[in-house]
Amino acid sequence: MRGLATDPQARGLLDDAAVLNVGGEEIVLTHDMLVEGVHFLPDDPPEMVAWKLVAVNMSDLAAKGAKPLGVLLGFSLGQDSAWHSAFADGLGEALTHFGAPLLGGDTVALPQGAPRSLGLTAIGRGTGQVPSRSGAQPGDALYVSGTVGDAGAGLALLHAGQTEPATLIDAYRRPMPDLSLGQQLAPLVSAMADISDGLLIDADRITKASGCGMEIDLGAVPLSPDFITANGDNRESRLFAAACGDDYRLAFAINPARIAELPDLGIPLTRVGTCIATPGIRLTHKGEILPLPTRLGYEHGTPIT
Amino acid sequence: MRGLATDPQARGLLDDAAVLNVGGEEIVLTHDMLVEGVHFLPDDPPEMVAWKLVAVNMSDLAAKGAKPLGVLLGFSLGQDSAWHSAFADGLGEALTHFGAPLLGGDTVALPQGAPRSLGLTAIGRGTGQVPSRSGAQPGDALYVSGTVGDAGAGLALLHAGQTEPATLIDAYRRPMPDLSLGQQLAPLVSAMADISDGLLIDADRITKASGCGMEIDLGAVPLSPDFITANGDNRESRLFAAACGDDYRLAFAINPARIAELPDLGIPLTRVGTCIATPGIRLTHKGEILPLPTRLGYEHGTPIT
Repeated sequence: MRGLATDPQARGLLDDAAVLNVGGEEIVLTHDMLVEGVHFLPDDPPEMVAWKLVAVNMSDLAAKGAKPLGVLLGFSLGQDSAWHSAFADGLGEALTHFGAPLLGGDTVALPQGAPRSLGLTAIGRGTGQVPSRSGAQPGDALYVSGTVGDAGAGLALLHAGQTEPATLIDAYRRPMPDLSLGQQLAPLVSAMADISDGLLIDADRITKASGCGMEIDLGAVPLSPDFITANGDNRESRLFAAACGDDYRLAFAINPARIAELPDLGIPLTRVGTCIATPGIRLTHKGEILPLPTRLGYEHGTPIT
Repeated sequence: MRGLATDPQARGLLDDAAVLNVGGEEIVLTHDMLVEGVHFLPDDPPEMVAWKLVAVNMSDLAAKGAKPLGVLLGFSLGQDSAWHSAFADGLGEALTHFGAPLLGGDTVALPQGAPRSLGLTAIGRGTGQVPSRSGAQPGDALYVSGTVGDAGAGLALLHAGQTEPATLIDAYRRPMPDLSLGQQLAPLVSAMADISDGLLIDADRITKASGCGMEIDLGAVPLSPDFITANGDNRESRLFAAACGDDYRLAFAINPARIAELPDLGIPLTRVGTCIATPGIRLTHKGEILPLPTRLGYEHGTPIT
């Protein structure tokens, strides 16, 4: 599809969101899908599926510093009305939380037995500068918000049939993108993205879009106490945290001269690396250069063209 | 979902599109899905599926008199790369035809054997007044653009294994919503909708949104010569044309005082009825009142809440 997205407002599909200038305002648009059996499981709580569908799209708006204007829902109707009703409850709760009204969409019937396929389009308004992935400069500091790896650890626990610690399970089931933080960071950063697929792969996308490289110190990646209790604090667990994805935190590059302006909203902002001129990711731990893991994060379907 | 759509900009989900006021401009947003096995068949040409996905969304923009700003694609990736590549060709052709750049979206993998599920969000800019379904007044004339029933006749031919006449097959496979016509009609009409599910059901939705009724003369419904050759011109064929759907023409209510201002763009505009105060559809043919068919058109999934 990349070959079709020649409009400058598509940003070469290098961003998770498109930006349209309308009447002097920047409109931010994003569309993310969740498919049963791929992004969620048939027995996942429907409220959680609804939350996640909203949150992954809000995370894209957060990375653009945008304020939600509303959402359109693409909903596929199965046979299970209890599922629909629980989904609607979760959707209402999430939309209220993020302040994003439901504006419309489409409901379709599915063939019997087909996996549910859900789509959400989120529309936001830029609140000043709208950062992209492509503005990072050599010398910029790379930061992440919050802690990294909790959702991945939660998913691993669920796969192992465990439901504790709840903070890790919740990090997976109820990601909490922070729209206010995104809005405050937007005018300060040179590039920003959400960490949806993994810190390493999302940082790598920033480098590719910006035409630079990134040195990342694995030892600086912020881990939560519960993550450390569950997985330990060692090179292996840190590599897992840096590549597991589903964090929905923000990663951003910032000119060192502006670091003092970073806001204090009670969410830790941690420097994990530095932009460099040489392309690619250069991963270090305790001063040692590490070979890159074969898998930097979650990879979507291969591009078609 | 209706219970969640309390924002006035959602128009109570009574419209096919949401309208947002941003920076003094009216942004029109619509999202329509096509599901394999429901809206298209596995052996339908992928170019046609792509065209239809774009066209059904452009039809919603046309009914709002909007000019396309772009689209976001929700694409599900199967195993068949020839299908993907033909789909991308058709998508490119359709987007070029309608002047709607691809701005972004999401591509997801599907579980093996799952039916394709495609979603498109179209964003447009209102070009003056943005009509809704809800402004029709008793005394208004009800008009339709073009001819009605061709796509339904084309689908019936395909079901019967026939491929002629090509105009009817094409009407089904390559619907041609007219954005220019919608833009010219928008400032003149009191209510407008596209005929996606059938003239009768779409007119009924206008009456429900407007709080009025509609008298429709089946004898006035415009049929194409090829439709008449294939299906004849009689009460039964006219009822079929008025309820089969997939026309993607415009139906609109207009104050009789403004009829003289209707544009001549080479597309016939035909008066088929009159808004009345009594709720519901009152169908007549040759001066006789007809019982309403049990099926006024294509019904989507039952609302959840």
